[in-house]
Amino acid sequence: MTYCVGLALAQGLVMLADTRTSAGSDNISSFSKLFLFEEPGERVVTLMCAGNLAITQSAMNLLVEGIDDGTGNVETILTVPSMFKAAQLTGRAVRAVYEADGAALKAHDFSFDVSFLIGGQIKDRRMRLFQVYAAGNFIEATAETPYLQIGERKYGKPILDRALRHDMSLTGAVKLALVSLDSTLRSNLTVGLPAELVVYQRDSLKVALSRRITADDAYFNHIRQQWSESLREAYRALPDPDWGDANDLPRVTGDRI
Amino acid sequence: MTYCVGLALAQGLVMLADTRTSAGSDNISSFSKLFLFEEPGERVVTLMCAGNLAITQSAMNLLVEGIDDGTGNVETILTVPSMFKAAQLTGRAVRAVYEADGAALKAHDFSFDVSFLIGGQIKDRRMRLFQVYAAGNFIEATAETPYLQIGERKYGKPILDRALRHDMSLTGAVKLALVSLDSTLRSNLTVGLPAELVVYQRDSLKVALSRRITADDAYFNHIRQQWSESLREAYRALPDPDWGDANDLPRVTGDRI
Repeated sequence: MTYCVGLALAQGLVMLADTRTSAGSDNISSFSKLFLFEEPGERVVTLMCAGNLAITQSAMNLLVEGIDDGTGNVETILTVPSMFKAAQLTGRAVRAVYEADGAALKAHDFSFDVSFLIGGQIKDRRMRLFQVYAAGNFIEATAETPYLQIGERKYGKPILDRALRHDMSLTGAVKLALVSLDSTLRSNLTVGLPAELVVYQRDSLKVALSRRITADDAYFNHIRQQWSESLREAYRALPDPDWGDANDLPRVTGDRI
Repeated sequence: MTYCVGLALAQGLVMLADTRTSAGSDNISSFSKLFLFEEPGERVVTLMCAGNLAITQSAMNLLVEGIDDGTGNVETILTVPSMFKAAQLTGRAVRAVYEADGAALKAHDFSFDVSFLIGGQIKDRRMRLFQVYAAGNFIEATAETPYLQIGERKYGKPILDRALRHDMSLTGAVKLALVSLDSTLRSNLTVGLPAELVVYQRDSLKVALSRRITADDAYFNHIRQQWSESLREAYRALPDPDWGDANDLPRVTGDRI
């Protein structure tokens, strides 16, 4: 499994991915799922992927080696002129892998399981964040829903729904993303450290921070522990029910139902 | 979808279920998923169900009308002598429905999707909590893992993993179950109020509390709001990263990958 989350905020982007891959619980490895393309002053693009590793690696190879746009013009993530074109190119890479491998995967009862988050900015164009599906189509994050997730989404979603705001600071957003990852790490063994983090400040056209977060990262361990303690504290502070000895529910008897 | 959670603690049982059923997002209804059997001084058994409503209703009918144990002896939830036998009987009800309806459901491409939580105590026997699967087999909660969930499990799981303890008070456990339900309600529209709650104190052989929690329940609304505020507060209290301008991650270039 995988957990990748991308936050597209007024101030910039936060992209965070775990690195665990698993083909069954007895076959666990560590592979980067975050790919960072940077030409300072020209473009910063971060791609994160989830799904079948053979599919994501094939698609990544196409995105770096280049895909012919049908007119003999070969595009890569390092040459596309806009983030929209980068998302389109990613979709075309996914479709090319499907054409090459889809039938064989189906013959072996593997689903064509792949998704990407692609976020960044290219000179003179807007910063954008997209999610590309296995069908090669895609959606974009908006101010109203400024985050996208792929992989094991559910455990880390509640805190984002409660606290993420489009106008928050990038530092605040990094903390939220880390808390979201922490909830996922605790509940799904097939999501694992190290994690990889990229922070991009809007219109800067250079990476603000890139960090590999290992299991012995002092800061991450500190906030994991503080978060756990705060939650337990918050829970202890909840008042007791005032329902007295309410007895609202009917009993099932032999002749009921 | 459904959210049901059962907590089996040193002091007793907490059983909580939502009531929303959905056959697509345009076909939403409210049906009880919690069934309470009580003969004070003799038995308290709470059954909660998730899955296809036609299957769960059929199984419930069998559990109330009775199932022949093969020797002409007809057992119901109100006659079985132990919680283990109650779990077995629930499994046999599920298998009977599968025999009656499984092939027809398969012909229409419906999966045989059903699960039950059954918790309670019968006079002179131990209090127990079981989860019964669609195959009719079952597992039991233990002191180490004192909770079981069916339906939409993921959103409500992190808080249970962090704060639930086997030796906590029943009041504390009720609050945790409600927080777990709140996270699920916020993230999955097909889980909805009212919720139904049963609290049972070990060895009492009577229901301590049964409550139908509606959308205008003042206490539940208060803790939902307080919990949200506490989480945001906990998040604001997290220290900022001390990573400076770390620049750990390699860049993808045209000749890399």
